[in-house]
Amino acid sequence: MKYTANIYVTLKEGVLDPQGGAVVNSLHTLGYSEVEEVKVGKYMILELDASNMEVAKERVDEMCRRLLANTVIEDYKYELKEVE
Amino acid sequence: MKYTANIYVTLKEGVLDPQGGAVVNSLHTLGYSEVEEVKVGKYMILELDASNMEVAKERVDEMCRRLLANTVIEDYKYELKEVE
Repeated sequence: MKYTANIYVTLKEGVLDPQGGAVVNSLHTLGYSEVEEVKVGKYMILELDASNMEVAKERVDEMCRRLLANTVIEDYKYELKEVE
Repeated sequence: MKYTANIYVTLKEGVLDPQGGAVVNSLHTLGYSEVEEVKVGKYMILELDASNMEVAKERVDEMCRRLLANTVIEDYKYELKEVE
């Protein structure tokens, strides 16, 4: 079976986010003063083969922990769906 | 009213994604040979004030077009929700 995982990686609460701060500043400069905060994270779309949903979930979770997220400073979540 | 926008920015179909290719290679090296493709995009969480949902939507859309996404090579989508 083929699966698609949408993975969202964000900085943990309390971790300094200079990229988010830079985006807020740029938005304010452009006149969007109503913006109070921006957090910048990563969004990954992963296509994989797995024998079933449970295996897919296990593998994607492991990939997140081992490579895709730095769990010291980042949180991750994902949605899995079967395709085809 | 306060709103939260979850914004997802991805490369358009057909635009070369070397970062995604690098992630696939790293995953293969780590033994995840079941991964066929990875696309890497941005995920932004934006907090803003607006008088109503329609205004919030209009403003967020404009921010995406003007700053947050490069619409020549990137697509964006977002979800807006009221908070408080």
